[in-house]
Amino acid sequence: MRAAVMRSQQLVVAEVPTPEPGPGEVLVKTLACGICGSDLHALKHAERFVENQRRVGARFVMDLGRDVVMGHEFCAEIAAFGPKTTRHLPLGSRVCSTPGLIRSDGVRTVGYSNETPGGYAEYMLLTESRLLPVPEDLPTERAALTEPMAVGLHAVNMARIQPDDAPIVIGCGPVGLAVIAALRLTVARPIVAADFSPRRRALAEALGADIVVDPAADSPWTRWADVAIWRDATRAPVLPPWVPGPPRRPAVVFECVGVPGVLDQLMGNSPRGTRIVVVGVCMEPDTIHPMLGISKELAFQFVLGYTADEFEETLRLIAAGSIPTAPLITGRVGLDGVPGAFAELASPERHAKIIVEPWRA
Amino acid sequence: MRAAVMRSQQLVVAEVPTPEPGPGEVLVKTLACGICGSDLHALKHAERFVENQRRVGARFVMDLGRDVVMGHEFCAEIAAFGPKTTRHLPLGSRVCSTPGLIRSDGVRTVGYSNETPGGYAEYMLLTESRLLPVPEDLPTERAALTEPMAVGLHAVNMARIQPDDAPIVIGCGPVGLAVIAALRLTVARPIVAADFSPRRRALAEALGADIVVDPAADSPWTRWADVAIWRDATRAPVLPPWVPGPPRRPAVVFECVGVPGVLDQLMGNSPRGTRIVVVGVCMEPDTIHPMLGISKELAFQFVLGYTADEFEETLRLIAAGSIPTAPLITGRVGLDGVPGAFAELASPERHAKIIVEPWRA
Repeated sequence: MRAAVMRSQQLVVAEVPTPEPGPGEVLVKTLACGICGSDLHALKHAERFVENQRRVGARFVMDLGRDVVMGHEFCAEIAAFGPKTTRHLPLGSRVCSTPGLIRSDGVRTVGYSNETPGGYAEYMLLTESRLLPVPEDLPTERAALTEPMAVGLHAVNMARIQPDDAPIVIGCGPVGLAVIAALRLTVARPIVAADFSPRRRALAEALGADIVVDPAADSPWTRWADVAIWRDATRAPVLPPWVPGPPRRPAVVFECVGVPGVLDQLMGNSPRGTRIVVVGVCMEPDTIHPMLGISKELAFQFVLGYTADEFEETLRLIAAGSIPTAPLITGRVGLDGVPGAFAELASPERHAKIIVEPWRA
Repeated sequence: MRAAVMRSQQLVVAEVPTPEPGPGEVLVKTLACGICGSDLHALKHAERFVENQRRVGARFVMDLGRDVVMGHEFCAEIAAFGPKTTRHLPLGSRVCSTPGLIRSDGVRTVGYSNETPGGYAEYMLLTESRLLPVPEDLPTERAALTEPMAVGLHAVNMARIQPDDAPIVIGCGPVGLAVIAALRLTVARPIVAADFSPRRRALAEALGADIVVDPAADSPWTRWADVAIWRDATRAPVLPPWVPGPPRRPAVVFECVGVPGVLDQLMGNSPRGTRIVVVGVCMEPDTIHPMLGISKELAFQFVLGYTADEFEETLRLIAAGSIPTAPLITGRVGLDGVPGAFAELASPERHAKIIVEPWRA
């Protein structure tokens, strides 16, 4: 079969063996697969990526000397059944799945494995018991967004939003946009979002941000302070008379940038008692000033991925139209277009989500 | 009056003006004042201390060109009343107070102020409305430990301990010991505590740690894993078959060391989902690997100080014998002994808490 392969830290389109489904596994035809920022990271900083896998105790670490077919945001179609499958979903069913291939000796991460291909290939293996049928009237490419949007739902769930929380989203790439969409499902309002890119700010508005800020022109925290005043003044804490201005509701920050320095900057800018949910994946070491955290009693919650339940709920919410996805899809390519798409995604102005359609000529 | 003064970044014993109580203030005679690690920091890294005050937006920053009398862990005796006082506590009453002198333009931190002396002086000013009477049968030097022990109570309150939490205290200096004492008041058991110093490990046991570990000889996390198995196996989460060993209860770490590198080390060693309560005050920049936090979904809660209610509760708990304090007091000095006591405290083997008694010859 054809695939876009990470080989010697380059992306090349090549023939690779079509995989054979093992017990409990199905062979699926990839219909659509989104390109994730983590894949760009993994290609550009492959050694650091592998080093991180090792450091965090991953059971299976990629061998960069062998092929890896990335792609973990997919919608696919059942093409063949392996042994010991129940076949409760018929051949040809459109399905989504969390990107984990469950084997008796551990889970292979679909998209970051030498042993099983991800969605930048014509075919993949999935675990039958993890398959979720895609509702008939949901377009394939929108079903493929279940995975990245589940990341936002999980981050917001981990934030344990309370009715008085005033959220602020820093960075409006795909992760920040997924967080904004998930925040729309909570009572937390208004949603303040910040990004240097006009394109991303427009997308943040389309996804449901109430106030979008260009940090080059305006401080997101000044805008936040303007709107985070207590709506019900009787619930506001009483401040000592020398503290200027009205009290503000609790700040919940979603860090969706993931580059060194952002965390410390947020620690410096956040008001006292802020909860910072770290969703952006920073692969490098990062320097913070703990005194900033201590003096303001800040809290961090680092988050990753989603639960199986959250993934399933996200698919349902996308199908119901409760999580908007249409504005996110800004490009479609076949396998030959994958290397070019990776290059395009380096600029935030051009694209949000590019969908790979391996069946495309 | 006599005082141990921080002058030109040296500690000298000198005559300073006896302060005059303003409206709502009382003049108190200092009976006992503990030496805090923060004071050692402030003397040794005075410029960084001031820089941190500035960075965190403190209203009043110390001018190192002028005298500062430190000391914020005190028990004192009312010596005179200023104007507009209610005098509800009579002259000669023994009192404790949070170390904040409330003035109309802001709070002066008693012990880190150019304007009002701390407890390393014969007399101090306190705000009358903040005074707490010391129960008659509570020894003065133990009442003086209210402040440092309140730090532990606050840290444990901020940890929001749940019945299944398995705590681990890293560092058994005065802060770690205060955390151990406060953990004894919760259901979290066993309490695992680690310190390189034999003296501090003995104190940790005296304060109520169930298991003490020398990190040079044994991994605190191995010992923790031995004892953090679910007591009620029916409440344990079901792990996939390939995960080795029994599931562990949620880890709650108290970081009570406060030197660069400890946080990242804890992030590396902590199991998935650990909450890290950062009580140790690290004044320097510190490097972390955010990927460690992300991959394990760690949470940090930075904490500082205590509330007025927690301070009052701590005094009550010390008086009731519920927070042990006697083992902590390892030395007593007069004002002339303060510079030597600062030097002694650099070694963890000799002392836990040295009490300054300014009235001593």
